[in-house]
Parts: sequence; C-alpha cells; structure tokens
Amino acid sequence: MERGSPGASRPVEPGPCLSSLRGAEPAASASTLSAARAQPESRVIAVAAVLPAGGCGERMGVPTPKQFCPILERPLISYTLQALERVYWIKDIVVAVTRENMGAMRNIIQKYQHTRISLVEAGETRHRSIFNGLKALAKDQPDTQLSKPEVVIIHDAVRPFVEEDVLLKVVAAAKEHGAAGAIRPLVSTVISPSADGCLEISLERARHRASEMPQAFLFDVIYEAYRQCSDYDLEFGTECLHLALKYSHTKAKLVEGPPDLWKVTYKRDLYAAESIIKERISHEVCVVMDPKQDKEPVDHFLEALKNELNDVKIESGEPGQAGRDIQQSNLKQCYNFVSMNIMMSDFQETRKLLRMLEESNLSILYPVVVVSVHFFDFKLVPLSQKMESLMWIRESAKEMKKRNILLFGLIIDYSQGEQKLQESLRQGAIIIASLIKERSSALVGQLLVA
Amino acid sequence: MERGSPGASRPVEPGPCLSSLRGAEPAASASTLSAARAQPESRVIAVAAVLPAGGCGERMGVPTPKQFCPILERPLISYTLQALERVYWIKDIVVAVTRENMGAMRNIIQKYQHTRISLVEAGETRHRSIFNGLKALAKDQPDTQLSKPEVVIIHDAVRPFVEEDVLLKVVAAAKEHGAAGAIRPLVSTVISPSADGCLEISLERARHRASEMPQAFLFDVIYEAYRQCSDYDLEFGTECLHLALKYSHTKAKLVEGPPDLWKVTYKRDLYAAESIIKERISHEVCVVMDPKQDKEPVDHFLEALKNELNDVKIESGEPGQAGRDIQQSNLKQCYNFVSMNIMMSDFQETRKLLRMLEESNLSILYPVVVVSVHFFDFKLVPLSQKMESLMWIRESAKEMKKRNILLFGLIIDYSQGEQKLQESLRQGAIIIASLIKERSSALVGQLLVA
Repeated sequence: MERGSPGASRPVEPGPCLSSLRGAEPAASASTLSAARAQPESRVIAVAAVLPAGGCGERMGVPTPKQFCPILERPLISYTLQALERVYWIKDIVVAVTRENMGAMRNIIQKYQHTRISLVEAGETRHRSIFNGLKALAKDQPDTQLSKPEVVIIHDAVRPFVEEDVLLKVVAAAKEHGAAGAIRPLVSTVISPSADGCLEISLERARHRASEMPQAFLFDVIYEAYRQCSDYDLEFGTECLHLALKYSHTKAKLVEGPPDLWKVTYKRDLYAAESIIKERISHEVCVVMDPKQDKEPVDHFLEALKNELNDVKIESGEPGQAGRDIQQSNLKQCYNFVSMNIMMSDFQETRKLLRMLEESNLSILYPVVVVSVHFFDFKLVPLSQKMESLMWIRESAKEMKKRNILLFGLIIDYSQGEQKLQESLRQGAIIIASLIKERSSALVGQLLVA
Repeated sequence: MERGSPGASRPVEPGPCLSSLRGAEPAASASTLSAARAQPESRVIAVAAVLPAGGCGERMGVPTPKQFCPILERPLISYTLQALERVYWIKDIVVAVTRENMGAMRNIIQKYQHTRISLVEAGETRHRSIFNGLKALAKDQPDTQLSKPEVVIIHDAVRPFVEEDVLLKVVAAAKEHGAAGAIRPLVSTVISPSADGCLEISLERARHRASEMPQAFLFDVIYEAYRQCSDYDLEFGTECLHLALKYSHTKAKLVEGPPDLWKVTYKRDLYAAESIIKERISHEVCVVMDPKQDKEPVDHFLEALKNELNDVKIESGEPGQAGRDIQQSNLKQCYNFVSMNIMMSDFQETRKLLRMLEESNLSILYPVVVVSVHFFDFKLVPLSQKMESLMWIRESAKEMKKRNILLFGLIIDYSQGEQKLQESLRQGAIIIASLIKERSSALVGQLLVA
C-alpha cells in the first residue's frame, strides 16, 4: 500500500468551478446548499472513500480498461478522483488498482496533482478489491497516514460526475442506518426469463429501482460483512448493500440520486462523458483587452459574442485590469479566453495573456482555449504583414499545445461597411463558440477569418 | 390517419452504408449475414412496424420532445425511420405523434424523403399510442394502403441504432412463439425498496434482464391483448410483452440484443448518439484528383493520410475517373471527400466535385465534408493570389452549406525542404481527420494552413 505525497498542494480547486458552472441547472441547487453545510454533521465524522479500479472494462470493446480511457487526453479515473478530492471532508481516498496498472496510476496522481490518494492492489473481483481497500483503512498502522474512518464511502472509478450533495446524503444516512446507497428509477422494465428463454415474470417498474453508487457504511458494518462473507460472494457478488444486509443484518437506507451518477460502461458512455465535460468547461468566457485600445470595435464584438453565446457567461476585462481579471478568472476556473488586438500585428495582448496562463496552473486539468482576435483594416495593412503574424501564431501555438493551451487566431476586417462588418462580427462569434465547444487540438495555430 | 407519398423514391439507400461502415465491429457481422438471408422466412410474411412517438421527453430536461431533438441538425426520429426503412421487408411503418407535432412530422418525412410511413394520432399514454397504431393496421380499409400484417414490430422512436439482424430475430421468434422481445443484461443491480425507503430485496443480477425494444407479435395476439386490456393497463403500463402474457396468454420468446439498442433517455444519450453517428460516417474518405496533375505530392499526401487516419478506409480516385469514383462512393455512402489541387488556384478539381455532389442526393441525410487541398509553392505564388482563392472558397462554402455540404480549404507549402514538408503533410492529415470527425459548420470556408 502506498500513499501519494500529502504535501503537494492542489493548484486549482476545481470544485467551485463545476458547481458554479452548473448553477443554472436545477440539479445543482442542492449541491450549492451542501457547500454551505460542508460537513456531514456538526461534530467531525472521519470519512474515507474506497474506489475499486481493477476492472478490465470488457463491455467497452476497447483494449484500455475504461477507468483509464482518456477524455480530453486525461484518464477517466482522474475526473472521478477530482470529484472526490474537492469534497474536503473526505480525508482519505483508497484506490484499488491491478499490479500492472500501479505505475500508470502513480503517474496519473503525479501529473494531475491529486492528493489524499492511497493505492492498494486490486483483487481478482470487484468485492475483493473493495475488501483490500477496507483492510488498508482498518490496519491503522503507525507507518501509514491512514486511520480507520467512522464512515466509508464506496464509489466507482467510472462514475466521474458524483456531486458533494449525494455524498453528503449517503454519509449522513449511513451514520444513522449503518448503510446507505444511491438509487435511480429504472429506464427499462426488468424481466425474469424462464429456463427456455421465455418471459416468466415482468417486474413492476415503479416498485423497483436501480442500485447505483456512491454507497456509504459505518466502517465496522461493512468491514465485518466482508470478513464474514463467503468465497462465493467475493467471487460472484457485486452489491455491497447486499453483503451488509446478509452478514451484518443492516438494512441500507436508499437515497434518490441525480441522473449524473450513471456508470461509464459502454463506448457511448465515454462519448457522453466527453461531451458533458466539454459543455461544463465552456460556460464562461473571459475577454481581455488593452486599455489604450480603441474601445468601439471591442464593444461591438462583445455584443455579437453575447448574442451568439447566449448561454455563456462573458466576463470582459476592465481596461488596465486584464491581469487582475485573469487572476479572478483563474479562481473561477474559466477555461476560455478571447484576447482583443486592435490594429496591431504584434499580438501584445495575446502574448501578455499567454505569459499569465503559463505561470498559472489552469491548464493542468483541462485544455484552455485562447482565441487571439485581430481587428485589421484590410485596406491599410499589407497582406504580407498578416502572413507574418500567421507564422508567429503558428509557432506559438505549437509551444502552447505542450502546456495544454489551445491557441487560435481570428481576423476581422474592420474596414468593411456597416452591414458586412456586423455579419463578420457575428461570424467571428460563431467561430469562437465552435472553437470553445470542440476544443480541437488539430486546429491550433490556424488564423481564421470571420 | 394519413400516409406519406409512396411514390417518392428514396435517392440513397442508407442501409449498405451503415452496415458496411461498421463491418469492422464484431456486432455488425451478424447484420451482414442477415442481409444475405434478407427475409424472415422463405415464404413472404407481411410485416409492419408501429412506432409510438407521442412522448414529451421530460427526463431529457429540454423543451423539445426527445424524438425531435436534432442530431447533426436532423431530428432523432428520422434516424430511427431510416433504420426501419432500409429493411425492405417491413411493408408499413405507422408512427403515432401528438396532434401538435403532426405538421412537424410531415415536414420531417418530406425533407428527409422517408417512405412507407403512415401517421396516426398519439394517445395520452404510450400504450394508447401503440393501440392507435394497431387499430390503423387492423382496419384494412379500401381507402388506405395499409393492410393487416401477420407480424407487427413495435419499436421506440428514440432507439435509432436498431439493426436488421435483431429485427429479423424478433420477427422470426414472434412467428413461432406469438410474441418476442429484445433483452439486455442489467448494468446495475435491481432492488426493491421497502415502504420506509430501505433495502428490502436485492435481485440477483444474473437472473434478470432489461426488456428493450424492438418487440414483435403475431398481429392478432397483440391486437386482442390491447382490445381486452383494462384502462389501468392502458394508463400505467409500459410493457407490451406483459399485455401479451396477461391477456393473450402468450409467453414471449426473449432475444439477446446488441448494446446499440439502448434508448435515448437523457441529454447525455443525445450526446452519445451524435458521437456514434459522426463516427459512423467518418470511416471512409474519398480522395479525388485530376489525371493531368503531378502525382508525386498526391502520393506523399495519401501516405500521410493513411498513417494518420489508420482506422479509415481511404479510396483514391484513379486519374481520369474522379467522376466515376464519386458515383461509386455515392453508392457506398461515403460522406467525406478530399480534392487535390496541385499548383492551381482556380480550384478546378474542387469545383468539379462540388457540382457532382450538388447533383447527387448524398447530403440529404448527413452533412458531407469536402476538403479542398492546395499544394502551393510559396516562393512562386504571390500571397495576394492565395487571398483571392480564400475569397472564392468562402463564398462557395456559404452556398454549399445551404445544401448540407461543408467545404474547407487546406494549403500545403510544397516548396519546403523534405523534413518540413513531411511535417506539413502529417499536419494536413491531422487537420483533415479533425474536420471529418467534428463536422463543424462554423468553420466552413476557412483556408487552413498545414
């Protein structure tokens, strides 16, 4: 059993980001509330989490185990760890991985600066992996920093969208009832086939539920259940609530969870997860500019952006405070920047922004999109000068890509007549919306024309 | 009850497209087989399908009913109709839609040239909608072209990925057993909560299955069941197999279906469906060129494309047969074209290709990507000439977009040294792969530089 460095401080706390980004959705309101409560009870309960991550993902139809499949180039399990990590009252997160994936897991923890993670070796089955995690917590050895928690959360490595709210609910219910688990309504009717493959019984959908994760238990309840349970259970069982009932005689409290709890099972679920993540980091755009610049084109463009990106929060930097603005955006976890360069070909605003982003740790978890917008007067500026600019942005984009910053250029001809200009501004806004939404690294360094 | 014009011939038969595109996947092999069998039995069974599409999609969290949500700008239900339509032995497809969506549905049928579709008004519940569809088929009136089928398939409007293979299986099983339905393994354990919200029973996952669609019935079996069933069943029931069992005493045969049968229920499912559709139409690229052109750069570029798009089938047009090639691609449903223009700025190859695409009906169902590749010698060709080209491609792209053809430009500097040129060719291939994968209409008309 090994433990990640607890000293490494997390540079950016993604929690406020995601919860504030989803503030507009009804499901998120409870989560905002919980942030205020922020602790399962008034007195401190010691809570730890165990994540079995030893599966091979055979249903996915891809060679990589699904918990290690990349989403925006980051493994799925890192998103799940991020979701648990941002809940500060979870003291330890024990992850069970196979021996062959131990090195890869250590690299993930280091690269994405995860903290409070301990690794144990996975067992042959899901139940054996969980049991190994519980054993590590139970030992309470002087040479580890783990200690036996009062309540333990069991979660899946492939359910990245778990919110603090539901974690809080299952922990509170486990404290009271000994065991608790999240449930969801059934999407399909469940039937029981006869031996000859015919319909025997069709269950009444309204009277049944799907048992999901997270689940939580008083540590002693679930640990005793695992210690007593049969080899058959350890081999073929899947349901922790069932073990608590069978061996510790503890009836779990069932907690209705949000739809986001779904488990990444098939390849289509990876697609869905990627789209959800892309959507969540695209809700905010920070527009930065130089105070000495002509404000008129900027104002017109901001208006076009607001019309086109109507579900996006657009923060524009007060002249002269671009730097401070980025610092603020950093705190708010904005992953999208538009820098305005009026009649200049030396990319001053963009260079300044890129330096600040390089110094921050913003792009560790998600690719950051930077669109460098250039208002040119096509009648005044020779074409060759624009091509030189193109070269600068191409070279710079290559460097930035290594740091997970996706740089694009966008040219707007400011010498056009009013109607054509309006059309260009609208087109520019559509292009920016698309660059932010797609986050395509193949197109970095391109100078697009609106 | 109304019926779409049966005279409108379908310009492109999407069937061979999708099944051949997925030929590489294990799940598709059975489908290829079935195309050979191609009929439920040696003697002709009359088969019709009923699609309840009156739902409001409340779980989706969006105002549009989910069956009308757009994927690549085409409503989801059109993909499901396409999947049923390409199975030639399904004689009639009866769709139940609410009165308020009747007009929208008629527009969909016309715009996407669906055939063999009849519309009936949806009832208040799913069962009532299905019953309305069955009634329309049962009437066997002289003034309609519908006649009572021997077997009726019931399917969901929101399961667009149904294959001929599973349809064949449920129809054959229904013929033998009176009723049949597709099933899938459970992803989550199913539990039964007690009145106080605690775990009462946890069902053994291996002994239960999720009941999915499609289902099929001897027409008289299911029609009698609906005629006899109680108002309570019509209001609150969801499972047709259950009605057949309860009222017609027919035990349905259960058929294991592929994972693709899943139902689009939540917003994440729409994301997944979009990604799957994009992936399916991206497996083939047709490269066209002029025979009089210098073949060397083309060959180098083809090599780079093959290296970069290693899971994509690349068809290159024999010199002088570009036209025939497009015709062939048309039959094969290739939705991605790369046209090679060497040292020319008048886009001859691209213009020719676009004319052919305009004349075909290829872009009715899916957006077609065209990348116009230009090998320039940056030392020879003045920059201003390239900017003129840019203007042509921008204007042309606007027109093409109206026809669902997405035109992009890609410039490769052919005057670079060997190493730099190789890097450019590789970069060009990456850009093309991304344009095909993303299919982003916001970036049409852009001239990208590799």
